[in-house]
Amino acid sequence: MSHGIWYVASPCKAAVTQTTRPDLEEISVESEHVFDGVFLRVWRETVRMPDGALARREYIKHSGAVMVIPLLDDGRVLMERQWRTPMRRVMIEFPAGKLDPGEDWLTCARRELREETGYSAREWAYIGTINNAISYSDEVIHLAFARGLTAGQQALDNHEFLEVFTVEPRDVLEWVRTGVVTDVKTVIGSFWLEKLLGGTWPLDWRPA
Amino acid sequence: MSHGIWYVASPCKAAVTQTTRPDLEEISVESEHVFDGVFLRVWRETVRMPDGALARREYIKHSGAVMVIPLLDDGRVLMERQWRTPMRRVMIEFPAGKLDPGEDWLTCARRELREETGYSAREWAYIGTINNAISYSDEVIHLAFARGLTAGQQALDNHEFLEVFTVEPRDVLEWVRTGVVTDVKTVIGSFWLEKLLGGTWPLDWRPA
Repeated sequence: MSHGIWYVASPCKAAVTQTTRPDLEEISVESEHVFDGVFLRVWRETVRMPDGALARREYIKHSGAVMVIPLLDDGRVLMERQWRTPMRRVMIEFPAGKLDPGEDWLTCARRELREETGYSAREWAYIGTINNAISYSDEVIHLAFARGLTAGQQALDNHEFLEVFTVEPRDVLEWVRTGVVTDVKTVIGSFWLEKLLGGTWPLDWRPA
Repeated sequence: MSHGIWYVASPCKAAVTQTTRPDLEEISVESEHVFDGVFLRVWRETVRMPDGALARREYIKHSGAVMVIPLLDDGRVLMERQWRTPMRRVMIEFPAGKLDPGEDWLTCARRELREETGYSAREWAYIGTINNAISYSDEVIHLAFARGLTAGQQALDNHEFLEVFTVEPRDVLEWVRTGVVTDVKTVIGSFWLEKLLGGTWPLDWRPA
């Protein structure tokens, strides 16, 4: 079976989001790579705005990421606690990781779920993509549910530290409401979890 | 009246998120400013991990932002279409803008709402904060609802191009479900909008 079709935006979405809008569009005039860090790559662009004026833009080029919401057979979900340096605190998140160059979302999702939690999934449902920093990063995060989970051996990267735990979906939603969960991908995943479990936003499940 | 108290995390949140976790925490050993662009500032840190090993981290220091969900008296909400260079397309968003250094969320929210849409609000309800790029940015986005709106004069910055439009909340949610709206702050605001209108997650309204 092919998973490729899940990945493509529907013609309907394209029609809504990709309409030409010369009154809003900027045209790239020049693009240069201005910083190459250990992890971050920054590009600077000169753009021509709708009124003809030139402006500068700067953004990070990112390889993209996947987040998985792992549904256990007992109704609980798997989550993680992980230290996030920019936030100076431990954050509560669903398992996630960066795409390798050219990697499809499902390959990455299977790998990250197995490495970070040890679990493998029998079925997957693709939710869609979100963009988390549209003014300064081209990052795309793919979201998916996994179910039919089987425990296995966690395989964290060298010097990767995170705690895996299980929690009831209603508690996750309460953490979103009260501001305990603030990571955007996890907040959005929590709302989708409620929609899925409530049966209002059904998804298409496929074997792994 | 003071709006300061809205800003402070509750003791309850602090207890959950700020527990000391030496098995997960990284300690900053050295921090250096490695890139200063027109808009982006990148810092590199050397951190000591829980096992004593050293690692590098890189992230953007951001002044923070506010997003407003403006509720019109007729039940519709105000949204914007704006070109986003990193995404190479027009995005649908709720009004938002960056905090000036030291600025409180409400001052920024009032200013951005007035400049981008022309509207002023009679009442505000603070939702909370979200973090949109926890592995590479310290950005915090404050979310709030505004109601009792009065139309006025839009005051866009020089060479700022955006289109303001009105839409039914049910259509916004459908755009989230079908992937037309992918900007994380707008997706999260849309889910909160449904919770507010459904009466399940009530908020505290204050005069502007």
